[in-house]
Amino acid sequence: MKYGFFDDKKREYVITNPDTPMSWVNYLGTSDYCGIISNNAAGYGFHKSAKTGRLTRFRFNSVPADRPGRYIYVRDNESADYWSATWQPVAKPLGRYKTECRHGLGYTRFISRYSGIRTNYRVFVPVDRPIEFWEIEVENTTKRDRDLSLFAYAEWCFWEMQQDLSNFQYILYTCRMSYANDTVDYSIRLWPFREPKGFLTSILPVVSFDTDREAFIGQYRHEGQPKAVEAGKCCGSIAVGGTPCGALQNRLLLKPGEKQRALFIIGVGDATTFGQECRRRYADPASVEEDFAKVQEHWSERLGRYKCRTPSAEVNSMVNLWNQYQCHTTFKWSRSASFNEAGGRDGLGFRDSNQDTLGVVHAVPELVKHRLVELLKAQYADGAAMHGVQPLTWKQGPHNVEQWVFSDDHLWPVLAVTAYLKETGDFAFLAEAVPCADAGQAAVYDHLKKALEFSWGKRGPHGVCLGLAADWNDCLNLRGNGESMFSTFLFYRGLRELIALAQRLNRAGDAAHFEAYRAELKAGIERHAWDG
Amino acid sequence: MKYGFFDDKKREYVITNPDTPMSWVNYLGTSDYCGIISNNAAGYGFHKSAKTGRLTRFRFNSVPADRPGRYIYVRDNESADYWSATWQPVAKPLGRYKTECRHGLGYTRFISRYSGIRTNYRVFVPVDRPIEFWEIEVENTTKRDRDLSLFAYAEWCFWEMQQDLSNFQYILYTCRMSYANDTVDYSIRLWPFREPKGFLTSILPVVSFDTDREAFIGQYRHEGQPKAVEAGKCCGSIAVGGTPCGALQNRLLLKPGEKQRALFIIGVGDATTFGQECRRRYADPASVEEDFAKVQEHWSERLGRYKCRTPSAEVNSMVNLWNQYQCHTTFKWSRSASFNEAGGRDGLGFRDSNQDTLGVVHAVPELVKHRLVELLKAQYADGAAMHGVQPLTWKQGPHNVEQWVFSDDHLWPVLAVTAYLKETGDFAFLAEAVPCADAGQAAVYDHLKKALEFSWGKRGPHGVCLGLAADWNDCLNLRGNGESMFSTFLFYRGLRELIALAQRLNRAGDAAHFEAYRAELKAGIERHAWDG
Repeated sequence: MKYGFFDDKKREYVITNPDTPMSWVNYLGTSDYCGIISNNAAGYGFHKSAKTGRLTRFRFNSVPADRPGRYIYVRDNESADYWSATWQPVAKPLGRYKTECRHGLGYTRFISRYSGIRTNYRVFVPVDRPIEFWEIEVENTTKRDRDLSLFAYAEWCFWEMQQDLSNFQYILYTCRMSYANDTVDYSIRLWPFREPKGFLTSILPVVSFDTDREAFIGQYRHEGQPKAVEAGKCCGSIAVGGTPCGALQNRLLLKPGEKQRALFIIGVGDATTFGQECRRRYADPASVEEDFAKVQEHWSERLGRYKCRTPSAEVNSMVNLWNQYQCHTTFKWSRSASFNEAGGRDGLGFRDSNQDTLGVVHAVPELVKHRLVELLKAQYADGAAMHGVQPLTWKQGPHNVEQWVFSDDHLWPVLAVTAYLKETGDFAFLAEAVPCADAGQAAVYDHLKKALEFSWGKRGPHGVCLGLAADWNDCLNLRGNGESMFSTFLFYRGLRELIALAQRLNRAGDAAHFEAYRAELKAGIERHAWDG
Repeated sequence: MKYGFFDDKKREYVITNPDTPMSWVNYLGTSDYCGIISNNAAGYGFHKSAKTGRLTRFRFNSVPADRPGRYIYVRDNESADYWSATWQPVAKPLGRYKTECRHGLGYTRFISRYSGIRTNYRVFVPVDRPIEFWEIEVENTTKRDRDLSLFAYAEWCFWEMQQDLSNFQYILYTCRMSYANDTVDYSIRLWPFREPKGFLTSILPVVSFDTDREAFIGQYRHEGQPKAVEAGKCCGSIAVGGTPCGALQNRLLLKPGEKQRALFIIGVGDATTFGQECRRRYADPASVEEDFAKVQEHWSERLGRYKCRTPSAEVNSMVNLWNQYQCHTTFKWSRSASFNEAGGRDGLGFRDSNQDTLGVVHAVPELVKHRLVELLKAQYADGAAMHGVQPLTWKQGPHNVEQWVFSDDHLWPVLAVTAYLKETGDFAFLAEAVPCADAGQAAVYDHLKKALEFSWGKRGPHGVCLGLAADWNDCLNLRGNGESMFSTFLFYRGLRELIALAQRLNRAGDAAHFEAYRAELKAGIERHAWDG
């Protein structure tokens, strides 16, 4: 089954059959705001933290799969027929509904044709504001006048996702919605907490709105058959408690061949101040294009740091474009949120995030350096590391070391820091003081030495690394009752990196010290091999 | 809008319009297994604990609302038209689909008519086994032969509900389904944990089955339009990881006027042993009726302990039947699981569960006594009480007293125990030793005294009770910075109860001691009144 192709010229992956076996997603956002969007516009957005800054709701493991999302409905006001600018959620028969999804660098575009109407729907997040643009161009390709409605629809999330998933006697009694100036204002009122706010606004005049999900969709319906779209008009609902949504209707009258643009903006901030500022600013399409160009510059600059040319066009495309795009996305959001990872454990996985630096250190060394400091702060004074750290809330203090120290975590910075040095020559970094997780601080170089010493102190009867709370494989939980060759090889590699670094720095004592470890470890490895 | 009526003769509430604004639910189960079922067969089942013993999945706050449930689809194999034995999930137009839901005592029955087929679908949980009966009688009311299929469908839950809601990289890789002897076997394989097992079996021969949700329903579909039902056949899927379900197809060939019975049983236990035992035992309809009769006896016996006759039939019905049924349900499941309370905080709310005894102590004094002991175990040696306790896992030990002691919790056993004594005269109970939450033990009578002493020691500048971590109102969190008249009145009532009890027991010293408290508290209340 063929679902799509790489359009290297446009730097897009194009999905021509939306009925994919799983949702295929893109990550939008280069700064504090992240929007995850599928080839059917499903997904969610969050600000800074997927755990505590969730703006829009996503139902994980849902039926139908992967809802809701960034839905724009199109309704023919003469026939009362309606569809969506993406195949889902209305899911018109694919014989009559033609669509392609173009996942590009920092944006996703949907081009669909149905009933003589062509829509070109583009979603992106600008580089410097916590908002999403939902921009749609609607074209009448028929020879008669068309009277259409657009309905943009979003479902708000209670900001704290664990509460959102399970504490309904709390979250269902908190929202206090309002509406003014073509803008839905999403607030929750929880004395004494100060929660963030959100908004959904429209550049075109709004002819009707809803802020209550049940009013818009209906109790026994789903996003594919909203009551309001069927009726052709929202009912002006104001949710006070219950389930808040944002739904805005525009009306378009199109002559044959005429195109019209609509723009909806959803974001984090006060509807009456920031929301209105966005509405004024982006009324001019040039401002939107300017922001879009900045996103493209961002990616061109990042991906331009490395180019290869091989005889294979596929390899060139994968290495120059898609693998790098993936590496930057992984580095940026640290695998903390997806359609499968609910985002409840956001922050940085210590092992993974160290690894993630390796794919991007050539392109964004300054960001990698910043990340390495965040990670080194999660290393204890004894050299062990926290398995995960949440930089937004991290505070120095004692931790439950015994239960959570894995065999490999602390060793990764040795590889990550030396890769950074090889790329940048920034040896001054080694002297920078970074706090330890529990108490005190140490120079970066000493953090690395502590890591190796910790592993040295946790060896088993064969002289190789013990399996601790877990091995590199999280599910191998030996807790000291066995040894780990996987971690031993990593330790060996770390020793070699540090020995080379010490030699480069003319620290002969350190080089000799770790050389002795290396030799003894090698003997242990060989002994292990004999045992096998 | 009229949705239904009370049928007092049958002791049922009858919902004649299934399109209710919210789901209206019944609680099935009198022992360890609880099934919650709505007027559209939505809901879930759990064994012992709604938090850790969740057999079937429920999507809280879902769109469409309240899915999945105990769905039986009916398919006309000639026309390929299909519907469900309850209005949802297929939701045929109510003009052509006639249905009534009868919520009875420990069972729910759905009688539906569509396309000349009448179905009578009854769900109940027997008194002594952790299973649900899904029994359906299908009648051909037309004058021609009918070729029908039935599909029973359930979605399994990962037993631990918080994991089920948020840890998808875990729960989506654990199931190992199998199928044999007309029975779906639900297992998850997590070394080294031993998780419980579940099964879905059919008494009639199974002509096709599925154990993988996506195979049965389809990725972009929902329970109202399952792919397998549309196709007329399941595809024999075996889920290994992914999302497990149970789906079983029966085929019925009905002559004009002919009726046939099908029975599906879902439960907790091993499919190959307990599942087969159930299948053999309940192949005989008389065995099912016998179990149903026991459920009815259970409720007749419980509700028969109190009868009133007033000039109002409505009052009689409410007092003799529905209020008592509600009180027993509340007492039994302790408000720990519903469609709004996700069940993640199961166990006993200390305040609520004490209160819940008051409505049933006349009918089930032995169970109340058992519950009172469970609750008293959550009282600390200093008289304060835990706000919640989970008897299944409770262990004596220190707790975070300061943060969680409310003004009122510990006072409720004074009212609950004295109500029990008034009902039973079982004064010997007062001498029974019950462990304290943190350390040591005390006689029941001394537990009550400790409670009053604790409140006495936590009074404010006016001599009345301080507001602590919370007041009787969980959201008033004074934390000692203010006084609570609500709790003071409760304390006053508690003192009066204990004084009366001490007098009854000829413990003049105790009576005088608490009488002094009462007098001084009264002065405080009056001083407070002046301040106001």
